[in-house]
Amino acid sequence: MEEGQPNQGIVLDVLAERYASPEMAEIWSAAGKVRLERELWIAVLKAQRQLGLDIPDEAIAAYERVKNNVDLARIRTREHVTKHDVKARIEEFCALAGYEHIHKGMTSRDLTENVEQLQILRSLLLLRDKAVACLARLAERARELRDLVLPARTHNVAAQPTTLGRRLAMFGEELCLALEHLCWFIEHYPLRGLKGPVGTQLDLLTLFAGDHDKVHALEAEVARFLGFSRRLDAPGQVYPRSLDLAAASVLVQLASAPSNFARTLRLMAGLELASEGFSEGQVGSSAMPHKKNARSCERINALFAVLRGHWNMLAALAGDQWNEGDVSCSATRRVALPGMMLASDGILETFHWVVAHFTVFPGMIESEWRRYAPFLATTTLLMEAVKRGAGREQAHKALQRAAQAAAEALQRGEDAAAHFTARLAATPELGLDSATVQRVLAHAHGLLGEAHAQTDRFVAAAEAWLARFPQARAYAPRDIL
Amino acid sequence: MEEGQPNQGIVLDVLAERYASPEMAEIWSAAGKVRLERELWIAVLKAQRQLGLDIPDEAIAAYERVKNNVDLARIRTREHVTKHDVKARIEEFCALAGYEHIHKGMTSRDLTENVEQLQILRSLLLLRDKAVACLARLAERARELRDLVLPARTHNVAAQPTTLGRRLAMFGEELCLALEHLCWFIEHYPLRGLKGPVGTQLDLLTLFAGDHDKVHALEAEVARFLGFSRRLDAPGQVYPRSLDLAAASVLVQLASAPSNFARTLRLMAGLELASEGFSEGQVGSSAMPHKKNARSCERINALFAVLRGHWNMLAALAGDQWNEGDVSCSATRRVALPGMMLASDGILETFHWVVAHFTVFPGMIESEWRRYAPFLATTTLLMEAVKRGAGREQAHKALQRAAQAAAEALQRGEDAAAHFTARLAATPELGLDSATVQRVLAHAHGLLGEAHAQTDRFVAAAEAWLARFPQARAYAPRDIL
Amino acid sequence: MEEGQPNQGIVLDVLAERYASPEMAEIWSAAGKVRLERELWIAVLKAQRQLGLDIPDEAIAAYERVKNNVDLARIRTREHVTKHDVKARIEEFCALAGYEHIHKGMTSRDLTENVEQLQILRSLLLLRDKAVACLARLAERARELRDLVLPARTHNVAAQPTTLGRRLAMFGEELCLALEHLCWFIEHYPLRGLKGPVGTQLDLLTLFAGDHDKVHALEAEVARFLGFSRRLDAPGQVYPRSLDLAAASVLVQLASAPSNFARTLRLMAGLELASEGFSEGQVGSSAMPHKKNARSCERINALFAVLRGHWNMLAALAGDQWNEGDVSCSATRRVALPGMMLASDGILETFHWVVAHFTVFPGMIESEWRRYAPFLATTTLLMEAVKRGAGREQAHKALQRAAQAAAEALQRGEDAAAHFTARLAATPELGLDSATVQRVLAHAHGLLGEAHAQTDRFVAAAEAWLARFPQARAYAPRDIL
Amino acid sequence: MEEGQPNQGIVLDVLAERYASPEMAEIWSAAGKVRLERELWIAVLKAQRQLGLDIPDEAIAAYERVKNNVDLARIRTREHVTKHDVKARIEEFCALAGYEHIHKGMTSRDLTENVEQLQILRSLLLLRDKAVACLARLAERARELRDLVLPARTHNVAAQPTTLGRRLAMFGEELCLALEHLCWFIEHYPLRGLKGPVGTQLDLLTLFAGDHDKVHALEAEVARFLGFSRRLDAPGQVYPRSLDLAAASVLVQLASAPSNFARTLRLMAGLELASEGFSEGQVGSSAMPHKKNARSCERINALFAVLRGHWNMLAALAGDQWNEGDVSCSATRRVALPGMMLASDGILETFHWVVAHFTVFPGMIESEWRRYAPFLATTTLLMEAVKRGAGREQAHKALQRAAQAAAEALQRGEDAAAHFTARLAATPELGLDSATVQRVLAHAHGLLGEAHAQTDRFVAAAEAWLARFPQARAYAPRDIL
Repeated sequence: MEEGQPNQGIVLDVLAERYASPEMAEIWSAAGKVRLERELWIAVLKAQRQLGLDIPDEAIAAYERVKNNVDLARIRTREHVTKHDVKARIEEFCALAGYEHIHKGMTSRDLTENVEQLQILRSLLLLRDKAVACLARLAERARELRDLVLPARTHNVAAQPTTLGRRLAMFGEELCLALEHLCWFIEHYPLRGLKGPVGTQLDLLTLFAGDHDKVHALEAEVARFLGFSRRLDAPGQVYPRSLDLAAASVLVQLASAPSNFARTLRLMAGLELASEGFSEGQVGSSAMPHKKNARSCERINALFAVLRGHWNMLAALAGDQWNEGDVSCSATRRVALPGMMLASDGILETFHWVVAHFTVFPGMIESEWRRYAPFLATTTLLMEAVKRGAGREQAHKALQRAAQAAAEALQRGEDAAAHFTARLAATPELGLDSATVQRVLAHAHGLLGEAHAQTDRFVAAAEAWLARFPQARAYAPRDIL
Repeated sequence: MEEGQPNQGIVLDVLAERYASPEMAEIWSAAGKVRLERELWIAVLKAQRQLGLDIPDEAIAAYERVKNNVDLARIRTREHVTKHDVKARIEEFCALAGYEHIHKGMTSRDLTENVEQLQILRSLLLLRDKAVACLARLAERARELRDLVLPARTHNVAAQPTTLGRRLAMFGEELCLALEHLCWFIEHYPLRGLKGPVGTQLDLLTLFAGDHDKVHALEAEVARFLGFSRRLDAPGQVYPRSLDLAAASVLVQLASAPSNFARTLRLMAGLELASEGFSEGQVGSSAMPHKKNARSCERINALFAVLRGHWNMLAALAGDQWNEGDVSCSATRRVALPGMMLASDGILETFHWVVAHFTVFPGMIESEWRRYAPFLATTTLLMEAVKRGAGREQAHKALQRAAQAAAEALQRGEDAAAHFTARLAATPELGLDSATVQRVLAHAHGLLGEAHAQTDRFVAAAEAWLARFPQARAYAPRDIL
Repeated sequence: MEEGQPNQGIVLDVLAERYASPEMAEIWSAAGKVRLERELWIAVLKAQRQLGLDIPDEAIAAYERVKNNVDLARIRTREHVTKHDVKARIEEFCALAGYEHIHKGMTSRDLTENVEQLQILRSLLLLRDKAVACLARLAERARELRDLVLPARTHNVAAQPTTLGRRLAMFGEELCLALEHLCWFIEHYPLRGLKGPVGTQLDLLTLFAGDHDKVHALEAEVARFLGFSRRLDAPGQVYPRSLDLAAASVLVQLASAPSNFARTLRLMAGLELASEGFSEGQVGSSAMPHKKNARSCERINALFAVLRGHWNMLAALAGDQWNEGDVSCSATRRVALPGMMLASDGILETFHWVVAHFTVFPGMIESEWRRYAPFLATTTLLMEAVKRGAGREQAHKALQRAAQAAAEALQRGEDAAAHFTARLAATPELGLDSATVQRVLAHAHGLLGEAHAQTDRFVAAAEAWLARFPQARAYAPRDIL
Repeated sequence: MEEGQPNQGIVLDVLAERYASPEMAEIWSAAGKVRLERELWIAVLKAQRQLGLDIPDEAIAAYERVKNNVDLARIRTREHVTKHDVKARIEEFCALAGYEHIHKGMTSRDLTENVEQLQILRSLLLLRDKAVACLARLAERARELRDLVLPARTHNVAAQPTTLGRRLAMFGEELCLALEHLCWFIEHYPLRGLKGPVGTQLDLLTLFAGDHDKVHALEAEVARFLGFSRRLDAPGQVYPRSLDLAAASVLVQLASAPSNFARTLRLMAGLELASEGFSEGQVGSSAMPHKKNARSCERINALFAVLRGHWNMLAALAGDQWNEGDVSCSATRRVALPGMMLASDGILETFHWVVAHFTVFPGMIESEWRRYAPFLATTTLLMEAVKRGAGREQAHKALQRAAQAAAEALQRGEDAAAHFTARLAATPELGLDSATVQRVLAHAHGLLGEAHAQTDRFVAAAEAWLARFPQARAYAPRDIL
């Protein structure tokens, strides 16, 4: 490309270009898809010859020779004539090879549906392994931060003690549930197969002179080639679009834990408890040089919105099949299928990076702790009061009054802990003597309940996932844009 | 209620009132939920006493006595004071019983999350059995219509022969896939359990003086009571909302086949090939008395749009958890959780009725067949030409030219079949002699490929589902509004 | 209702029951709708008689007499027979009156579409006035908080100074834009009118013996009665569903500013800068008595998710009209039309309450200010350096280095301001002498740019809205559940 | 690009590549955006110099010289270092020019938000003109088909007579409503302007030594340059995302009429009443050569699903602003903003083509007419009976019985018209003598009500739109892929 002569008007897919990994982009690139189609055609050719059809060796060899010769512009030119994309690609491949043997007994959808399902399957496998890698990294950080105590927050307000490791375990468990779902989906994902224009396999049966077994053998071979263990039996021209939607649904579930994690890290950054990390050379804000923005966490949330948009595109197709089908799903799927895979990939890539790089500020966490410690013990104080015979409701009211007075003192800038303790001792209906109150408050740091055990069990679960999919070790957090 | 004094301003839930079954409405009614909560509280009380807490027998007996005494108005009055719905229900139950023992060591979400999950689980089980019943009915009709040949349509235009039974098998297979997914989800659906305000079980641990085993035993007993086999380990105050969304996703998949079926039956009604059936006393159109409208099929499609709307409500919650959670999901779930169950139930109720009652018009199907038969054989003619050595592309072009000419004749009102046959015989590059053409056209009716076998396999699959869930036999198609 | 005999299985619309106002619930109640329909029928009857049709006075009088006699149960019983809801309501009204004169020349949709549009219009007018009331209240608070300086935050991190009044103006301006849009929509909202079964007004024309003028006069009278200034001319049986969606879109826009405000107040509550307020008697958290939760703000966000779900339901109808229409929109609109109005109403009711009641904690805001003041001046320092001849990029890098070092000191608990100042003076490439730095930092509090003027302009804009719709003064913030 | 060396892994934006026009793609191309940004920077520079800032002439000249020198790869390389896209583009432009003067007093969003709004505005203007062109074409066809009578269908079943021109007017009126809305939106669309990092314009005020007037003058000049007549006054760092959503909403409305038209033409194709047209060289179905598929109409529906998905992406941003904003919207908007414009453009391009090329089959329409004529007169017969004194309800029942019997005869293949007439004459409660029945049936063709007048009014309305935007004449239906 000449300087000053940029590729005018070219619009790249922004998900592939900015957020997703090269390996995911490759699966959904135009050239990659053409190569996949040609492999499918050749596989069908070979199986057809094996099953007795009259197909010359030289033809197959010719197709093999030119299969990587992908000229998208020339295919597009053909499509402008035929107004039919598959037809254009058949013509191109035949013209290159100098034969007219491919696509026999097949309809367009015998090609496209199967290739698309292959793209879906390969994408899901990639996402599964990456999710396992993220999970393993999250478990590492949970182990590292297992003992870092901080106030858990509900309604965005300090509530009871937890540890940062335990908080990560919370997101981790959600990710495990999604992974489990994804694995089930992959294992049960059925291939449409070679079904012909309306699903009855009529043309293949004609091609094989009515021999049902040969039709089945051909289809089984194609499924094997593509890596599917199950096949649909009675689809129409198209497979049910609720299958695409089910895949999208699992991806939305998969992205939920990263999105929750990101949302929470953005909140922690607002309290200066943590930062998502900063790459060498990164410029925070062009105008405000001191800021370390949670821009990658924000990106995770942003991509999650994209993903749910793709879900909605596919949801408009499910349940909208007319008879045996048509192409009213085509443009939608051309956008949403790659879109949802690239967005999911971008989410996991970003999540992986953030999980690996986020840093915590123990000084700030300590100061946060001191501020809220007295309040964090209130439920324990309530329990103690109840154990001593106080009515739950009355004790609750008394504690609430004392705590709110202390909170107001804090908001005025006074010492809330002292304020709170004094008031409780002066509240006889609680039945709590001053020593008990002091003891509970002094030990607030230890009011962690099952936090450690929960963290440890999550770490063990993550390790089991990694043991099940050891190839996930290959994924390191990658530098992101 | 006095005549002329209607319940002014009362807005009933329209899904429960018009479309869903009483058994589903009961699960989500306000009174039903209060009863469920009270049973949970009593179960917790009993387990707590068994595990050594000091809870008098009389207290439990008192709670048991009043548990069905549900006065929603009085609870609402309490809520207007407390601004806290759970608090209001605790106060009401305690006031009725004259004790203050329930809810010890629990936070609001220990109550509400578990009860809501129970409502979800029971709803899913109900929908599962109904879906199996629908499937069985669909298989019956597929068997009945196994041999009724008609032109399959793609792009809404006659394409190749199929049978009506085979078309039903297409929708049936989609339903089987969704059912399989639903069953997996139900089996793996984990209960949040009793986790306390931030998920660490601190308060229960305090209540049981640090005895971890008792905490686990208590939680296990509650899960057993509710019918769950799995529990979450490390949620925050709330369980991950991606779980709600996963349930919604499965329901959208479940409704897709009924929606596809409905869409297609509406198309068939437009061609007068079939009608969804007409109840005794039903008025078609108030203005156009002759019409038999596919209003129930239209309703299925309408409710499917509702369901996807509920999915979107829940999708706004997934991935939006702040720290350990809050109630920014509350109003959303109050609408979407019952909504999605009631809409799904309405879809299955309506689908069941239509599957049982739809009628076909063999006279019209026969006339449709005669009109399109010549065209339906074109792919077979193409295969024959290829078998005789014609290049696929050239043969295709020749056939296309002939078919389009015949189609134009048809559109002018002429005899298309004769037109087509004559033209083919006059096209030497096809290598098809007139006798072959005649033979293929004459046997168009038999060009069904695997249609019969596919239908039979679907019928067998449906029977296997019914054998697995025999309780589904209890569901008969119910009269709908 | 007897004690212990709750209305088993009754499911109330949760939006109407918990969140919306009685006046909005009345618009969408079943009984209210029946009354509206009857008024429409009577209006049509009167106009028909006036235009020369033979309708006895006694008949009209009889209909008038019974019009408020609404027995929903009996109508439902009729519907179970006819399977047609409008037919059931015609029969009921005629049976009550003892005449058969209503609905002449009309089809069901001539009734229902117009009544629904009336419900929509009345709801929009109500929401408009409430939004103006909210705006006025927001302007009051903006004026009150005009001079309360605090760090504005971007990426949830302190960025530059602003005032709280200015922050409210930001949300207020967004609300103004939505209001402007809503007003435009209301003014241009066209009534479907009396168009007959396929839109051609054939039956009315027959009824009036081909007199076009009478048909137009009748329709104009009905539109006048309903309060519409525009009519559609050429709809089918149904009006375009994109009109419903356009209404829903405006509502989503209307709810965006309240939702943004709520989200931000939840963040401020997390920093203890503000609280949404606490009603007398309110119980914060049943388990954690000290907490003042932003539960109403959370509700606003929750209802916004509901509203967008309803948008999606209606979006499935737009662009899905088959020929002149059908009822595949019916169940969807029965859910989504009331739903979106009730949810919007709940959002505005809650927003109004929070705007009126939220409190700020000046002590905490002051302490927040001290912590961040040095950093908030960095862009001013950058400008100063550029004015003194420094290259923008180099100055930026130098400032960034100094600011990040200071931020790290802060995170270690040191005095960040002192740290920062010292470092800047020791950075010659900035060209900033120590006195200049001190001066800028000392005046950070005044670095408000246009904040005051922006606030004042918003307050003036809000006042102009209130002057345009003075009836909005009638709305006071109402106690919410 | 070498043969056999395709651009591995490149994923093009499929909407831009396949469906949208080059002029819309140009607006959203990466290179185009960089050029726009540079023009904005230079405009700011010039205005700043004019307002007294010290900016050398040579610097501006240098920037001007290199502004079209766009090397996306080099910018990307810079971004990999800075992790900040705007910073990368500033550095690149400065490096090319050899000066560091641009972006003074600006923050990233001062650049990006304004450029994005410019892209939005230009896209909307383009879509407006195209929609007017489509409308004009639709009016042409409506005029041409004004007198072609066919049965209007409700519930997909023949209901009453209409004309094809009248049916087009129905879709046309919906399009007019959307256009009106779009024009309002464009006229009221406000620019964010130069507001600085938190919206207070602090840095510009510093740059201009506190001179408010100069700040306003600068902003006004930029708005003028971009073509906006309104500006926001008090946004945060970002403008309210509800504005993006409002634009998306208008586009969804704009696409609804084309989608309704497409859906209906697909139905008409199924009845062989019409076809969307066939380009020279187009291959129908690769397997079924006779078929003329409504693939372009299907595409319109497919792209409409895409558009609604983009709406959902943007809906996740509205109401989710944290404080003064962040980039949690960035990835979402990078996908959805171009996406919704490109999809809308693709819809209008395709719609334009189909409206211009669709053909009707008068022979088939005639035969359809003959089949349904008797039934189409039933409402007129009902009116006649009522005029003669029959009770509406009884007459309705009698007609229904007769019509359904005739419909059953039709479904058996008998002569329905004769059947129907005979039966009516034998139904005394109708009070219709045989001559009246005959007369009504004979004139069924004329039972068009207001159809002609409605069509004519639509045509006039379309002409008024074209007169208002005469530049729309430049758009001819373009060949589509």
